Amino acid sequence: MLKNHIRPDDGLDKESRKEETKRLQELLTAQQPALREAKLPVVVMVEGWAAAGKGGLINKLISDVDPRFCSVFSLDADRRDADRYPFLYPFFSALPENGKMLFMDGGWMEAAIRDRLCGGLGKEEYRQRILSVNRFERQLRDNGYLVVKLFVHISEKEQAKRQKELLSDRETAWRVSDSDRQQNKEYDRFLDAYEEFMTATGDVFPWHVVDGSGMKKLNYDAFCLLTEAIGASLAAGKICGEPFEADFAMAPTPRLSEVDLSPRLEEAEYRKELDALQERLSRLHNRIYRKRIPVIVCFEGWDAAGKGGSIRRLAYPLDPRGFETWPIASPEPHELARHFLWRFWTRLPRSGHVAIFDRTWYGRVMVERIEGFCSEKDWQRAYNEINEFEADLHDWGAVILKFWLQIDQETQLARFTERQNTPEKQWKITEEDWRNREKWPLYEEAVSDMLEKTSTEAAPWHIIESNDKFYARIKVMRTVADAMEQALKDRN
Amino acid sequence: MLKNHIRPDDGLDKESRKEETKRLQELLTAQQPALREAKLPVVVMVEGWAAAGKGGLINKLISDVDPRFCSVFSLDADRRDADRYPFLYPFFSALPENGKMLFMDGGWMEAAIRDRLCGGLGKEEYRQRILSVNRFERQLRDNGYLVVKLFVHISEKEQAKRQKELLSDRETAWRVSDSDRQQNKEYDRFLDAYEEFMTATGDVFPWHVVDGSGMKKLNYDAFCLLTEAIGASLAAGKICGEPFEADFAMAPTPRLSEVDLSPRLEEAEYRKELDALQERLSRLHNRIYRKRIPVIVCFEGWDAAGKGGSIRRLAYPLDPRGFETWPIASPEPHELARHFLWRFWTRLPRSGHVAIFDRTWYGRVMVERIEGFCSEKDWQRAYNEINEFEADLHDWGAVILKFWLQIDQETQLARFTERQNTPEKQWKITEEDWRNREKWPLYEEAVSDMLEKTSTEAAPWHIIESNDKFYARIKVMRTVADAMEQALKDRN
Repeated sequence: MLKNHIRPDDGLDKESRKEETKRLQELLTAQQPALREAKLPVVVMVEGWAAAGKGGLINKLISDVDPRFCSVFSLDADRRDADRYPFLYPFFSALPENGKMLFMDGGWMEAAIRDRLCGGLGKEEYRQRILSVNRFERQLRDNGYLVVKLFVHISEKEQAKRQKELLSDRETAWRVSDSDRQQNKEYDRFLDAYEEFMTATGDVFPWHVVDGSGMKKLNYDAFCLLTEAIGASLAAGKICGEPFEADFAMAPTPRLSEVDLSPRLEEAEYRKELDALQERLSRLHNRIYRKRIPVIVCFEGWDAAGKGGSIRRLAYPLDPRGFETWPIASPEPHELARHFLWRFWTRLPRSGHVAIFDRTWYGRVMVERIEGFCSEKDWQRAYNEINEFEADLHDWGAVILKFWLQIDQETQLARFTERQNTPEKQWKITEEDWRNREKWPLYEEAVSDMLEKTSTEAAPWHIIESNDKFYARIKVMRTVADAMEQALKDRN
Repeated sequence: MLKNHIRPDDGLDKESRKEETKRLQELLTAQQPALREAKLPVVVMVEGWAAAGKGGLINKLISDVDPRFCSVFSLDADRRDADRYPFLYPFFSALPENGKMLFMDGGWMEAAIRDRLCGGLGKEEYRQRILSVNRFERQLRDNGYLVVKLFVHISEKEQAKRQKELLSDRETAWRVSDSDRQQNKEYDRFLDAYEEFMTATGDVFPWHVVDGSGMKKLNYDAFCLLTEAIGASLAAGKICGEPFEADFAMAPTPRLSEVDLSPRLEEAEYRKELDALQERLSRLHNRIYRKRIPVIVCFEGWDAAGKGGSIRRLAYPLDPRGFETWPIASPEPHELARHFLWRFWTRLPRSGHVAIFDRTWYGRVMVERIEGFCSEKDWQRAYNEINEFEADLHDWGAVILKFWLQIDQETQLARFTERQNTPEKQWKITEEDWRNREKWPLYEEAVSDMLEKTSTEAAPWHIIESNDKFYARIKVMRTVADAMEQALKDRN
């Protein structure tokens, strides 16, 4: 029973509690520069019953924290459009930067349980969410985040009393929503759901149940738990998690060394196929849009392999109201200061849209690995972190296409040289491209590892033989069109 | 008549037009690195009749442009939630970075006319929008943007034919919205509105009417106009506009030299007032939230004047679901690469929310002026650019509160010294604070100019005597509460 897990009373008298609360509040204020120094990001998730006082508690907790280093997330304000994005989207998007704190007024517990009990979410989908939440929390821990999870508990009677009070005043009545009322009517059903959720998600970061019946005790308990958790994290230092095993169903691993780069397409044939495929993609995009199926197309490949050209041909027949192209360069400071997948989560397409990524999250296990922009543990862990990310996208219903554009070294040299010698193409070739070319064997190893470890059934890699640009473009477009068609069939 | 302004036929035969189009498309591709070099941002706004082929035209225009340097904005996709933000919000938010191109499928013309003809927007409000659009375009020009405005024209008959075609196919029928049909039914009414709008907004960037009846001619015309405009801009170099006069109704100018810094408040009195004001603000925030009135509170002041402390007391009684605090530091690269107000437009509160800015857009005329982070023309122009920004916020219905927290040099020294000598406060004081202190006279001059030039009736400055922190905090809170109360009265 939830009540048995509640933080016990420590028998402080009124005056001592007041003093202790003040001391702890000062401690939190003092911990903040230390968090900044340690670059430790903190997420404080305040969950609990409607009318339990979560908003008031958060305001008390942040009242002496420098607003430059903390922000507040509100589940209700941030889940508009929630049905067009994956479950974790609002939470991932809200992640704080290193050294900053985020306070959440309702989080992934409330969102999951509300969808299950009030939104008709099926049992299997709910199970998937629990899985996804546990992966998310592990990823946060492994990437150095501290998550403090509080559940503010009040009794059925107390909740009824508070809701009645709120409803009796015109100024506050709007705060009691229909689903809040439902919660009180079906208190036991919600209680079971909360307990089950806490049991299922208590492994990575523990749940703390706090008593919401009295505001002063509540504030005191929360300050205790928060400062303790921060103190422990500061003492332990920022965590960089170990690589881990995961058992994703894998697709056959494509092997670079076995790729036959000889396929070619004559120009006349190319033009014919191009017209037909663009016509087909245009019609498919229409249907994808109406069925609200999200499509994510990822382009990776050697420099000068022809990513840009393929992307342009693919995008041309798509309705610009329904697709975005995301060129991915080095991360900006505010991106570097967060989980490495944050900048991709925040660029996901709405359902029904197509997002094309010109380079992707796989930079983690290629350029970041090779150039030492992250630690070895970081990139080794990233294979499965990426598999988990793509599993979330797949479960959401996305069509995911990952292309590796393969060319040989001779072809790259010829294209580099042509760029160098053609005035209007010179901007496409930089010193860095030549430097990267020298690292061909290192990249080859990294690419092979990537193909082996991340070609899951949910999101397999497609190798595109790209020595001949005509052949490559047509293969990309046909693969996308086939996948869209299949997804439309599966949905019918 | 619109038809008379249409780009005339140049009598090219089919084959020559095809070749010319290809040449122009290559020219556009070649102009792109030059745009990047010149850091020139380009907005291509494609307006026109429903079913005129805007989407297809945009796809053709971008088909050979490197996707890393261009993006597409779609009016329909980006105006969800439009009723919770100022009119210009989606357009300002979509602005491209220096050296990049944005293609807009429908822009501020369509948005304004739709609201007027289909959304019940009043005549006076519409007039305000035209004004606001003209200011916006001038600001874009003065800040180095090129805006190319195309209107794709088709006849009533042609539109009817195309809509019929689209509607006859299940795959494409959804593309014809109710308002598209209304447009064809009331073609002449829309025609008048388009013409009127173009006449009223053609001064800063001219309108180009292009014939949409044939796709090939349309593409050719658009490539001509676009490459011509870009060529001219590249030749002229990036514009940095001159400061300009504007006749805003001004509030009495507060003068720093006349501020009496002696007011104080005893602690007992402070505690009493604080409790009462927090109670009052909490109730007012409820009502503001329900009435959907946006509130924007700006804090500026000397280092150590007490901004942080005032913000915390003000925020404490507010519902965290309905306010955000924005600490403003130096701009990040993607912010620096855009209009200096971009990072503030994108942080505006939704209607009903309170946004608190800890430092603001006034950095332009203080630190950026003094440190030379922008040119003299830039900061001199900024006074009225800011006045225009705040006028937009005011017209939207926002309550705007601008506080200057004033202390004298002795008080600052005492507070700096205390910070230096108190271990848990040392992080608050940096070398830079001491350096800024040495520039006191320069800042004093900048602040005086700012108060004189930006204290408009719509958004007057409030000077807060802050030698005594208790007095300052109470005055801030009371000013905010009074303004909220007044706004609620005005709305009733």
